[in-house]
Amino acid sequence: MSHLSVHVPLDGGRAYDILIGRGLVDAVGAQAAALGAKAAGIVTDETVAALYGERIRASLEQAGLRCGIIAVPPGEASKSYACYAAVCDRLLELRIERGDLVVALGGGVVGDLAGFAAATLRRGVRFLQVPTTLLAQVDSSVGGKTGINSPHGKNLIGAFHQPRLVLADTAALDTLVEREMRAGYAEVAKYGLIADPGFFDWCEANWRGIFSGGPERDEAVAICCRAKAGVVVRDEREDGERALLNLGHTFGHALERLTHYESARLVHGEGVAIGLALAFRFSARLGLCSGQEAGRVANHLAMAGLPTRLQDVPGGSGDAESILDAMAQDKKVRDGALTFILARGIGQSFIAPGIGRDDVRAFLQDELRG
Amino acid sequence: MSHLSVHVPLDGGRAYDILIGRGLVDAVGAQAAALGAKAAGIVTDETVAALYGERIRASLEQAGLRCGIIAVPPGEASKSYACYAAVCDRLLELRIERGDLVVALGGGVVGDLAGFAAATLRRGVRFLQVPTTLLAQVDSSVGGKTGINSPHGKNLIGAFHQPRLVLADTAALDTLVEREMRAGYAEVAKYGLIADPGFFDWCEANWRGIFSGGPERDEAVAICCRAKAGVVVRDEREDGERALLNLGHTFGHALERLTHYESARLVHGEGVAIGLALAFRFSARLGLCSGQEAGRVANHLAMAGLPTRLQDVPGGSGDAESILDAMAQDKKVRDGALTFILARGIGQSFIAPGIGRDDVRAFLQDELRG
Ligand SMILES: NC(=O)c1ccc[n+]([C@@H]2O[C@H](COP(=O)([O-])OP(=O)(O)OC[C@H]3O[C@@H](n4cnc5c(N)ncnc54)[C@H](O)[C@@H]3O)[C@@H](O)[C@H]2O)c1
Ligand SMILES: NC(=O)c1ccc[n+]([C@@H]2O[C@H](COP(=O)([O-])OP(=O)(O)OC[C@H]3O[C@@H](n4cnc5c(N)ncnc54)[C@H](O)[C@@H]3O)[C@@H](O)[C@H]2O)c1
Repeated sequence: MSHLSVHVPLDGGRAYDILIGRGLVDAVGAQAAALGAKAAGIVTDETVAALYGERIRASLEQAGLRCGIIAVPPGEASKSYACYAAVCDRLLELRIERGDLVVALGGGVVGDLAGFAAATLRRGVRFLQVPTTLLAQVDSSVGGKTGINSPHGKNLIGAFHQPRLVLADTAALDTLVEREMRAGYAEVAKYGLIADPGFFDWCEANWRGIFSGGPERDEAVAICCRAKAGVVVRDEREDGERALLNLGHTFGHALERLTHYESARLVHGEGVAIGLALAFRFSARLGLCSGQEAGRVANHLAMAGLPTRLQDVPGGSGDAESILDAMAQDKKVRDGALTFILARGIGQSFIAPGIGRDDVRAFLQDELRG
Repeated sequence: MSHLSVHVPLDGGRAYDILIGRGLVDAVGAQAAALGAKAAGIVTDETVAALYGERIRASLEQAGLRCGIIAVPPGEASKSYACYAAVCDRLLELRIERGDLVVALGGGVVGDLAGFAAATLRRGVRFLQVPTTLLAQVDSSVGGKTGINSPHGKNLIGAFHQPRLVLADTAALDTLVEREMRAGYAEVAKYGLIADPGFFDWCEANWRGIFSGGPERDEAVAICCRAKAGVVVRDEREDGERALLNLGHTFGHALERLTHYESARLVHGEGVAIGLALAFRFSARLGLCSGQEAGRVANHLAMAGLPTRLQDVPGGSGDAESILDAMAQDKKVRDGALTFILARGIGQSFIAPGIGRDDVRAFLQDELRG
């Protein structure tokens, strides 16, 4: 089985590898055994369990590990206190001890939920990420952020807990519905927009190969993981640079909140796509980048089938004031001032603290009119 | 205000002080302001809120901090998933941000619960311990272990999260009921039994001063904190030596589990007292220490009004097999073998892994007969 690999050189014995390639789901058992685990609790959602649960179980059992599958309902609503408690209790029932493993098999929802359970079960057990969505492979499975949502907002409860290994099986994306593929693609494009203009060019030329499962897919996943790993190693706890990864997310999270995390209306990556387009148009309005570049960003996202305007939110996004309020609840708020990630051009993003509410309100009002 | 102080020299900017003295509750505001916090969420229980809530609120507001009080019902039952979620949500309602503080005002229950909320709220906010029970002052407020209980056992969910400061107001213990004072005293005596025979001698001579609130109280709290801080700094994550602090706890936790954490029957420190006596009698039975020393331990605990035998558990402790099963659920189990902390004498404890179930069963059966 040939695969690409990205090393994440964290200190304190926490360095780990990300393996990327087709068929890696079947390698989970051997890898878990190599880590010395005797048992594994597989946390997944019902959709992914039906597709890959038995394969991963077979792989683990063949490698001599005791294992059990814990499947939560698919969707953002499973990142809740109640699911968290249920997953922890099931892991305890399975007698997962400190030397054992929690395996997160699924998208970002499962990765965040299982990772938080692993971070806090017996004050920390090791865990392995097996991301099965494009978004999880290029973003959520790397970097150690884990967590759940509160009624007060997304990801407000959580922990930093690095995986011991990430196995990104790019063939697993073949079963992903088109819409989720597109949503993940918003995060792929994001890496180009943050700091890698050459990669954005490459995306414009090669995005179809990512969707169809050509070698471009593995390559893109590896490039994104390398970019994210670099940021995470330099700024693990988001005291600085790591915040750049939130490009598009301040708007995106607000839209997710306003649509009550109903994936029928908006999934995370769609919120990010609209957020990316807004971040560039807002940057252009503030005279930071050209309107042409903002247009190029929105065009490419739209070409890939992604929404790029507030009006694209089914049922509407709410008015400017509600969007502002929803943004102010975000944890990237310090003393009431809003912090945005803005850009001086494609691949030239930066952290812009202290953006005034009035500027944002006026921008949003024009967007809603436009 | 004169006070004693113990420094906990942890690395990575996490070093902190423990201040010990009468009246420190009123110093919370000044200390919180010195840490640069703008707001504080005070987590406490209803009993402690009624006694000290308004004083601490006044102290914080006088220092210019916005604050709110979150009071859970008193008792172990509040270390639950449900209370954890409620506390987190209330802290979010109070808009506690990363630079702010969570203040744990109360006994070990509140310290563990508030500490875990602080560890996971926004993936970690700073917190300040204001322990108001003897147990919390000498044990639970120091060392960074935080957590809640699962239906599967005590402290099975949690995180390591060090406080920024511990303010142990020894005058607050004046309002503590006698029974809780005694329970905390079991942990005081424990430090002598683990590694400090001279301190155990001192306890035998001076324990009444601890109970009555003489200068011996502050001195004992400082000695215990210094002992615990030393262990924690050398072995923060309990890979080795820190396990010694569990002297008496393997039996103690099992008894708490069997009495369903009903404090009417058994509180933590009482379980520990019985556990300490059992650990020494078990050590004597295995030929590790003299029966005389085991007798001296039990005598001193009984003198201070503590239970020392399984028969002292109101309603009974259950039979040997149930106690064993309850012990096997403890997280200090590796691959099914039991790990005990045993002793070669007073002040000479050590970690004894791989103790056979049969030896323990026979010992417990004799104890229940005796
Ligand atoms: N921790 C981080 O750093 C981080 C970063 C970005 C996003 N996130 C989080 O990730 C979550 C979104 O992740 P997501 O987009 O992967 O959503 P998701 O986990 O809900 O997965 C999307 C859908 O795809 C299905 N699915 C997953 N894999 C499949 C497969 N191989 N074949 C068919 N169907 C499959 C799932 O059942 C689900 O219905 C959000 O909660 C977000 O907050 C976390
Ligand atoms: N984190 C750790 O390292 C650690 C170590 C040991 C114990 N613990 C935990 O600590 C908990 C036990 O702590 P505890 O014994 O302090 O119990 P507790 O917090 O329940 O307090 C005991 C009782 O005393 C009352 N009280 C507290 N302060 C008072 C005061 N000044 N005046 C009058 N009443 C007061 C409380 O309302 C409560 O009813 C257990 O949950 C145990 O697991 C944690």
